[in-house]
Amino acid sequence: MSPDEHSVAATGEFGLIRRVTEGRAQPPSTLLGPGDDAAVLAAPDGRVVVTTDVLVHGVHFRLDWSSPEQVGRKAVAVNLSDVAAMGAKPTSVVVGIACPADTPAQVVTEIMDGMWTEAGAAGIGVSGGDLVSADQLVISVTALGDLEDREPVTRSGARPGDVLAVCGRLGWAAAGLAVLRRGFRSPVGVVNAQRCPEPPYAAGPQAALAGATAMMDISDGLLADLAHLAAASEVGLDVQTAQLEVSTRLKEVGSALGADPLQWVLTGGEDHALVATFPPFDDLPEGWRKIGVVTMPGSGVTVDGREYDQQGGWEHWQQ
Amino acid sequence: MSPDEHSVAATGEFGLIRRVTEGRAQPPSTLLGPGDDAAVLAAPDGRVVVTTDVLVHGVHFRLDWSSPEQVGRKAVAVNLSDVAAMGAKPTSVVVGIACPADTPAQVVTEIMDGMWTEAGAAGIGVSGGDLVSADQLVISVTALGDLEDREPVTRSGARPGDVLAVCGRLGWAAAGLAVLRRGFRSPVGVVNAQRCPEPPYAAGPQAALAGATAMMDISDGLLADLAHLAAASEVGLDVQTAQLEVSTRLKEVGSALGADPLQWVLTGGEDHALVATFPPFDDLPEGWRKIGVVTMPGSGVTVDGREYDQQGGWEHWQQ
Repeated sequence: MSPDEHSVAATGEFGLIRRVTEGRAQPPSTLLGPGDDAAVLAAPDGRVVVTTDVLVHGVHFRLDWSSPEQVGRKAVAVNLSDVAAMGAKPTSVVVGIACPADTPAQVVTEIMDGMWTEAGAAGIGVSGGDLVSADQLVISVTALGDLEDREPVTRSGARPGDVLAVCGRLGWAAAGLAVLRRGFRSPVGVVNAQRCPEPPYAAGPQAALAGATAMMDISDGLLADLAHLAAASEVGLDVQTAQLEVSTRLKEVGSALGADPLQWVLTGGEDHALVATFPPFDDLPEGWRKIGVVTMPGSGVTVDGREYDQQGGWEHWQQ
Repeated sequence: MSPDEHSVAATGEFGLIRRVTEGRAQPPSTLLGPGDDAAVLAAPDGRVVVTTDVLVHGVHFRLDWSSPEQVGRKAVAVNLSDVAAMGAKPTSVVVGIACPADTPAQVVTEIMDGMWTEAGAAGIGVSGGDLVSADQLVISVTALGDLEDREPVTRSGARPGDVLAVCGRLGWAAAGLAVLRRGFRSPVGVVNAQRCPEPPYAAGPQAALAGATAMMDISDGLLADLAHLAAASEVGLDVQTAQLEVSTRLKEVGSALGADPLQWVLTGGEDHALVATFPPFDDLPEGWRKIGVVTMPGSGVTVDGREYDQQGGWEHWQQ
């Protein structure tokens, strides 16, 4: 058979939908799954958390760097991370995939496999979606979550004196990106961190239960995202580098590439760790590490009390 | 100023987000709007209806045929139509826009204006989104809805003997597409129907209240979509052409272009009318028109009792 016979065009929209939905087990919270005009999901709290992220080939991922399965996992992970950052438990995702007619159907089914893998890691399923033609592979994911009777933890509740803490890895995806950009494929630990983040989903609700005053996920880089939290809470934030974990692996990669691993930790995006602020006298929940303190309004985001001069952070269409 | 200074690249991701979110009034059901990791919406029913559709420039719309405002309206309308087709009331949409760096920022803000216009027509707002860079303009919308303590109306409940009925226009968007493809821009009624559907949102919940046994929206064409409803309900469906409304305007356009207006009504997509089945002895809700009957399993979708030989209907990547 010619490769064309394996393309999405040859498989057809409805054939492809069958292939990616058949045999998938929905969790009980999916009251009505794929196949109708819309899905119906349980929303026991009476409120629903919703967030959407779009990932574009060549911008957010590259199929010569990542497998389709890793791309699918990443597309779901970056969204579930946003749900966790509100202190909510993910309940489902719906997905959109736009791709060229000559895309192998296998690429789409593997992306969907990855989406199901990552959804499964959070105890949920993919309850709906849309498959359309486009010139470039574009993936959109919308994730929903349940607050389980807790108040959402926003970016705006941090108070001077609170502890600043993170849960999850920092700098690993940036180190992996640096490795991939040099044409290397190892060390696989950092490279895989770039290909697919491993956000600590359960840490979001745990932080909420522990009284976190503000929380967000780190998608663009620690300092860049802290600037958003500081602005929303109208406080300053000081990161104390002595408390940041710069792992041996990051130091090795930094040494091999002539790069400063601390800069990856401070400014590298795409790890989707959670950062939160907690009342100063409480114990941090398990897995959370103190990395600084909330300071007075107007002092901005500082590193060891001083302005950091290599900001970094990702912004779309930046020149 | 050069045009570049007006591009999304010059405006920047965060500048653009400010421009499209500032001054927007959210409905009371939006408990937390844009600006955090996720939005929080009321889901009073304890269940939430969710659907997502992706629209691609050159596939689902063309900016030389439609204004950005019309494109934004259409992207929201096709999703809210799916919510209505479940018998639910829309509660909010979240949106993703991927576009090239040289896209005028004005195009994005006008798309968002259109999204807000259409959302407003359904009494809701845009509660979140994502703006990213891509080679091609791609718009994803996810719509949420509330069932208001009713059961969802799926595609699978039609029973032989039920009445088949529609609410909304049929064939107008296809006639508009035929006009645009010939290079004309009028009659504006059919052309605007192609640019932006006007789904009868309120008719979905009304049909549910009136006891509709099955319902869906017509996105790919009446006969193509009825085939899905027939398969899901395991029934046959017969459309009676004597009961189909072929308006004077469609007849005029068909006459001018040498096309059969009835074929537009039977196979034209993108009008997003609602089609539903109702118990045979009940009055139809206001605005609904009988167009046929539910027949026995195995008889398929027929027109005046016979197989229709010009199927039509849209499928992605079709060859």
